[in-house]
Amino acid sequence: MSTHPHPVAAPVSTEPTSLASRFQAIRHQSVELCRPLLPEDTVVQPVIDVSPPKWHLAHTTWFWETFLLREYMPGYQVFHPDYAFLFNSYYNSLGSRVNRADRGTLSRPPLNDIYTYRTYVDEHMEQLLALQDTLPPAFAEVLELGLQHEQQHQELLATDIKYILSTSPLAPAYQAAPTSRSVDAAPPAAWLPVPGGVHQVGFEGEGFCFDNELGRHSVYVADFELQNRLVTNAEFLEFIEAGGYQDFRYWLGEGWDLVQSQHWTAPLYWVKLDTGWHRFTHHGLVPVEMAAPVTHVSFYEADAYAQWCGLRLPTEQEWEIAARHFGATAAGGTFLESGLLDPQPIAPDASPEQCHQLLGDAWEWTYSPYHAYPGYHRAAGALGEYNGKFMVNQLVLRGGSCATPESHIRITYRNFFHADKRWQFTGIRLAR
Amino acid sequence: MSTHPHPVAAPVSTEPTSLASRFQAIRHQSVELCRPLLPEDTVVQPVIDVSPPKWHLAHTTWFWETFLLREYMPGYQVFHPDYAFLFNSYYNSLGSRVNRADRGTLSRPPLNDIYTYRTYVDEHMEQLLALQDTLPPAFAEVLELGLQHEQQHQELLATDIKYILSTSPLAPAYQAAPTSRSVDAAPPAAWLPVPGGVHQVGFEGEGFCFDNELGRHSVYVADFELQNRLVTNAEFLEFIEAGGYQDFRYWLGEGWDLVQSQHWTAPLYWVKLDTGWHRFTHHGLVPVEMAAPVTHVSFYEADAYAQWCGLRLPTEQEWEIAARHFGATAAGGTFLESGLLDPQPIAPDASPEQCHQLLGDAWEWTYSPYHAYPGYHRAAGALGEYNGKFMVNQLVLRGGSCATPESHIRITYRNFFHADKRWQFTGIRLAR
Amino acid sequence: MSTHPHPVAAPVSTEPTSLASRFQAIRHQSVELCRPLLPEDTVVQPVIDVSPPKWHLAHTTWFWETFLLREYMPGYQVFHPDYAFLFNSYYNSLGSRVNRADRGTLSRPPLNDIYTYRTYVDEHMEQLLALQDTLPPAFAEVLELGLQHEQQHQELLATDIKYILSTSPLAPAYQAAPTSRSVDAAPPAAWLPVPGGVHQVGFEGEGFCFDNELGRHSVYVADFELQNRLVTNAEFLEFIEAGGYQDFRYWLGEGWDLVQSQHWTAPLYWVKLDTGWHRFTHHGLVPVEMAAPVTHVSFYEADAYAQWCGLRLPTEQEWEIAARHFGATAAGGTFLESGLLDPQPIAPDASPEQCHQLLGDAWEWTYSPYHAYPGYHRAAGALGEYNGKFMVNQLVLRGGSCATPESHIRITYRNFFHADKRWQFTGIRLAR
Amino acid sequence: MSTHPHPVAAPVSTEPTSLASRFQAIRHQSVELCRPLLPEDTVVQPVIDVSPPKWHLAHTTWFWETFLLREYMPGYQVFHPDYAFLFNSYYNSLGSRVNRADRGTLSRPPLNDIYTYRTYVDEHMEQLLALQDTLPPAFAEVLELGLQHEQQHQELLATDIKYILSTSPLAPAYQAAPTSRSVDAAPPAAWLPVPGGVHQVGFEGEGFCFDNELGRHSVYVADFELQNRLVTNAEFLEFIEAGGYQDFRYWLGEGWDLVQSQHWTAPLYWVKLDTGWHRFTHHGLVPVEMAAPVTHVSFYEADAYAQWCGLRLPTEQEWEIAARHFGATAAGGTFLESGLLDPQPIAPDASPEQCHQLLGDAWEWTYSPYHAYPGYHRAAGALGEYNGKFMVNQLVLRGGSCATPESHIRITYRNFFHADKRWQFTGIRLAR
Repeated sequence: MSTHPHPVAAPVSTEPTSLASRFQAIRHQSVELCRPLLPEDTVVQPVIDVSPPKWHLAHTTWFWETFLLREYMPGYQVFHPDYAFLFNSYYNSLGSRVNRADRGTLSRPPLNDIYTYRTYVDEHMEQLLALQDTLPPAFAEVLELGLQHEQQHQELLATDIKYILSTSPLAPAYQAAPTSRSVDAAPPAAWLPVPGGVHQVGFEGEGFCFDNELGRHSVYVADFELQNRLVTNAEFLEFIEAGGYQDFRYWLGEGWDLVQSQHWTAPLYWVKLDTGWHRFTHHGLVPVEMAAPVTHVSFYEADAYAQWCGLRLPTEQEWEIAARHFGATAAGGTFLESGLLDPQPIAPDASPEQCHQLLGDAWEWTYSPYHAYPGYHRAAGALGEYNGKFMVNQLVLRGGSCATPESHIRITYRNFFHADKRWQFTGIRLAR
Repeated sequence: MSTHPHPVAAPVSTEPTSLASRFQAIRHQSVELCRPLLPEDTVVQPVIDVSPPKWHLAHTTWFWETFLLREYMPGYQVFHPDYAFLFNSYYNSLGSRVNRADRGTLSRPPLNDIYTYRTYVDEHMEQLLALQDTLPPAFAEVLELGLQHEQQHQELLATDIKYILSTSPLAPAYQAAPTSRSVDAAPPAAWLPVPGGVHQVGFEGEGFCFDNELGRHSVYVADFELQNRLVTNAEFLEFIEAGGYQDFRYWLGEGWDLVQSQHWTAPLYWVKLDTGWHRFTHHGLVPVEMAAPVTHVSFYEADAYAQWCGLRLPTEQEWEIAARHFGATAAGGTFLESGLLDPQPIAPDASPEQCHQLLGDAWEWTYSPYHAYPGYHRAAGALGEYNGKFMVNQLVLRGGSCATPESHIRITYRNFFHADKRWQFTGIRLAR
Repeated sequence: MSTHPHPVAAPVSTEPTSLASRFQAIRHQSVELCRPLLPEDTVVQPVIDVSPPKWHLAHTTWFWETFLLREYMPGYQVFHPDYAFLFNSYYNSLGSRVNRADRGTLSRPPLNDIYTYRTYVDEHMEQLLALQDTLPPAFAEVLELGLQHEQQHQELLATDIKYILSTSPLAPAYQAAPTSRSVDAAPPAAWLPVPGGVHQVGFEGEGFCFDNELGRHSVYVADFELQNRLVTNAEFLEFIEAGGYQDFRYWLGEGWDLVQSQHWTAPLYWVKLDTGWHRFTHHGLVPVEMAAPVTHVSFYEADAYAQWCGLRLPTEQEWEIAARHFGATAAGGTFLESGLLDPQPIAPDASPEQCHQLLGDAWEWTYSPYHAYPGYHRAAGALGEYNGKFMVNQLVLRGGSCATPESHIRITYRNFFHADKRWQFTGIRLAR
Repeated sequence: MSTHPHPVAAPVSTEPTSLASRFQAIRHQSVELCRPLLPEDTVVQPVIDVSPPKWHLAHTTWFWETFLLREYMPGYQVFHPDYAFLFNSYYNSLGSRVNRADRGTLSRPPLNDIYTYRTYVDEHMEQLLALQDTLPPAFAEVLELGLQHEQQHQELLATDIKYILSTSPLAPAYQAAPTSRSVDAAPPAAWLPVPGGVHQVGFEGEGFCFDNELGRHSVYVADFELQNRLVTNAEFLEFIEAGGYQDFRYWLGEGWDLVQSQHWTAPLYWVKLDTGWHRFTHHGLVPVEMAAPVTHVSFYEADAYAQWCGLRLPTEQEWEIAARHFGATAAGGTFLESGLLDPQPIAPDASPEQCHQLLGDAWEWTYSPYHAYPGYHRAAGALGEYNGKFMVNQLVLRGGSCATPESHIRITYRNFFHADKRWQFTGIRLAR
């Protein structure tokens, strides 16, 4: 197996002294993530969910151009008149665009042109940021949204790159294996009680949040218990070896159909070699580390595993209430900046009374639909399409992952995917 | 247009004096529903959701044979060894079966054989019912489930027959037009307040319910208001004429994709003729009655209509709390027994302070996922597949419809369909 | 297995004394073929190639109405204004029509209405035929075409009915097993030489032919040899047992793809039971008769069998030259009128110097494309769509089958199907 | 529109002084063809027919490794054990391989690794060629086949590159527009008679041919006439403007289905701008040159055009007989070596008595199936899969094109494509 080792991406400070330096740092981070790639890697789209890295680099740039430069910089000339058609993702308000499934058919514009596009837009943005004091308050809001948007695509870049490299039988490595905690076995999971009652959920206070977190509201939950860590590979392997993927009784009907039609027998990226179970990772094919959290499971697999245990997944309300109850912070979590790009095991001597891995490591599937909070209204204009139009048929995930920028996550953050998706760093935490 | 008028089906008493007579009455009702059909009508499956009436008649019979006769009648001989393969719907526990999409390819066994099958099973069931006192309590439970199951298929028979007849350009009538209230215009909708707080939802008390209603539990809702009647055809037509089907801003993303790929421009069964909008009904093609509730809309259409109004759909919790608050009963509602087979307008002088049409007329889409209630566990064995395995990616509908047997509905009843389904009698009630 | 025995259809005289009696006889034959069916059998379309018998009965009637009655009978009123939309097969000249794939979704008009339609049209046709002497010559030509067209649909009725009944696990019989020759083993195939040179092919002389047979023209063929009978089930079974369906080397590429995706392991309708290979037939499931010709094979299977033998299929030119050379006649062949509905073995003492089974029994796949003969021009108007527009991507079959009316076949007759089709009575004759 | 001009590829001598130098020249030509590409261009597969250039470069190299080096060079070590899986095209004999539709999902191995692979194999091939005198005669045969194979992929490279660049709205140019004949109008087409009778077709004599050309045999053709040049864009535009793409009467049925489902309104690569019809070419988007031959038409379009003219396409036998009759040579034809990459108009003063453009410029669709010649047998082993398994459902094209290496074509050469393919340089010559 040929590998292409690269230095681990440098961490982005989460406390920039100015918006301009934060802008620069985040824009730089996207480029850094693509540095280990060859031009060929930036073009392909092996499945519809996975966009070419070149497209991510251009689309995030188009976002700045469309929502900031064209709105707030008089006389701004777009870099190229065709780029709006090429790099609009899903905004109907902004006209026709390349079909999502066809993103991987376009070799042009090439990667270098995209980098030129980024430089052009960054330079204009820096001019605009210098004038920030003269701009209306809405500017700062959309600017913040643009930063958050770019961070979201950084996570997608990390996971899409992984998928792209995985399709080759050569199992190429994105980077050399980082030095990470190596742990023989995780300590047993402990149950932590959370008192029920009427609680508040949703965002409140200073700082940024997405519109889908707004509308802090009361919910009633009964007393419940949560496991103090994520389910591990060792635990999930028991399910596999007990025939979990062959027994319909544990599965939701639509999940069982997928198990059969897609021949699922393990999480995405797992391969059984003569020498045992391996996983494809950003540093190539490696043995499954038993103490690490299981990841790249669909909601169906998470739910079936819970059924097999006689347990269940938490709701998003329970998750948020617990996270607040336990005072969850980013400290100790694994985020994009670590460069590890895999959820990490907890220490063998980790306290059984603390709730670990709530932020970072792996997105936690909840048994809650991605629906609007009470009082939610879609914003007018194109940005109203950002979140609201997806509010059906998807499930909420909470807590961020090893591919999430640390400054991007918070306990009210609502991520969402269809129940069959597996290419994100998704994991399982059990409740009862 | 050739029509095939038939007498309106006779109502089934909702208060039978014995289980045996209730069994007979319900079994008879299924046959009565099919009496206006020709053998040809009982075979076809124009889309995967719509099963051939012959299949419904056989499948309900197979249910009795499988879960009652084979379990509780010693020495019972199945009617035909191949029928389990032919008429199992979705029970993995009970072995392989005809693909759902292929139900409409089977001309044999013919309708007459199915009637013979029904008679054979009914006679054995009556023998078994005579011995009821000697049987374990589980017998009565499964018996009740069988009756409810047969009633569910009666509703499906009514809606599937409608769809089947609708595919012919001849627009054949299932029955002569019944005499029903004719109302020029519905009174304006009024808003009824419902006090919020911590409420209980879920079934409790005597009588039958499905397992998905169990686990009465507390929920918190804020104060809200509900409209006192269903949205009418006249109101929905305003949305159509305002270009609602051409403006993506009102639609969820997956709904908008369907509007475009399926060329939706109105509810299912609506046709614009030179003489104005018409609807295909059980009594052929008729002008749209403006005062009647709109029906045969998908969740996407219900939601887009609410968005266009600047309002929203209720959650299932709100609906149930309101129904209990207003003391909803079946009185005045339109059910299968009426033979009207269409939701009916409320009287022009209906009280604006009462909440109308909560039970009967049209299923009301809620903005709630069909998820398990807290504490839900799937039963062991085949009956555990009855409800639990569908608990993802569907939405809850409440209140029953004009095709629901009156004795079948209650305010805790949770029906569920995918967001794109339109062939059931589905309607809209607005909340805010 | 329940069977529904019916008397074998009565043979139609091939020498009627008048056109009117020929019209009556052929129209009657179509109805006779459907007599053993239940209404349910006449509606379904299990695969796109197989049309509902009800549709065949109506479409052939529509043909008379459209091309004869509307053209030549002043004041003729069509039976129903929607029937042209419902029962046009593929004539673009005649307007829009039901999608071919949707023929099996229409339960209405019911079978009885179709019989009323047939009677209505037949009565008018008989009136028209009484005036035949006053009509232009084109009338007689289209009349003859209509008779031939109806006979073509009789063959399709026989094969479509077989397919429809085969889909039921009950394996219902269309008719009781007829008394037919029972032969233990066929005599070995003998090679018959045919001298090459420049020969004439194509129709010439009196009587009817299709436009695709016209344009008698010269072709050069080298000397060749033909087997004196069709390949038998016993011979084809050797290929199966030698692993022919598992070895790509014998197969054309597109055929091999089908073998794998469709899991072909034997001809259509073959089933391997504990008691050996069986075939579904018009009289239910019966053991494979080893001496009978193999049938229901695709071109790919015919070609792969020939490759496995180190031999080949004849071209259509070779076939026609040989048929003329050997003086092929219908005598001794198995046709629709026999009611046997299966190709029959040749007698154990059949002469090795004669060429058997050229006409009747099974259509013989040739290795010739269905292309236009030199000088072919499509006729103007709708009848120009009868043959010409299919002249690419199909292969020619020659000689008729056990489902072909005897009066319908001749040695210049060119049938055509795509290479993957198996539901017709198709067989194999080898050449070298 | 950004362009990436590159010098026109240097012509390859068609008369190398030795096999080794011919090997070097042809291998070099493949690399030259890809020189104007960016790495991104070499990866994508916008439709299944179009393979990534990287794949072509690797597959041709795999061919040498598999059929020459592994067979004839003792101790040869394959470059990489996974490459056989990655770069086998369709040889079942040689094991499993990447699905054809997935070639465009593989970013790795990158282009540079493929060039290293080519160098590795070329160096070993040169060592082997130095020993040629000691090798068995079969070596020289497979060597020649390898050279022809590489030339076939050069043509595919030229046409696949064109398709890949065409998918971008930027319309990037592969090379600067070459200097070519510019002609206002082509002289009118003249009819040239060819005497019929029994003729010989198929390859005979010295030099290389493919197995599908072997088996020289007699055919009879009637007298016929051929047009002395290809149909021009001006002529085809008349068909477009006369509504040819809107009138089913000119089209074969399967062609008409495509016209409607694919919304064909002109040949591939034609775009109607405000300034008139343009075509995408290897040098970007340019106005349609009226005197040049129409190209990038499917068989269906070629046939419909001929039907509209009341004429027809020639058979492959007629074409070959005519080409021999007129003494067709490569002189004056447009081939790959010219670097023009577009069929060229004939001179305004071209002789009406000569038959132009028979070799080079555009492949000419014939109305002949790609079937085996009499006596054809597939070779044993993997090379037996080269041609034989495609011999059904495709049509023969004759004469080579502007993307065919001049040394590769001859009058007996049989190219073949499915009737719907348009991405090759395919054109029309009329017969009667």
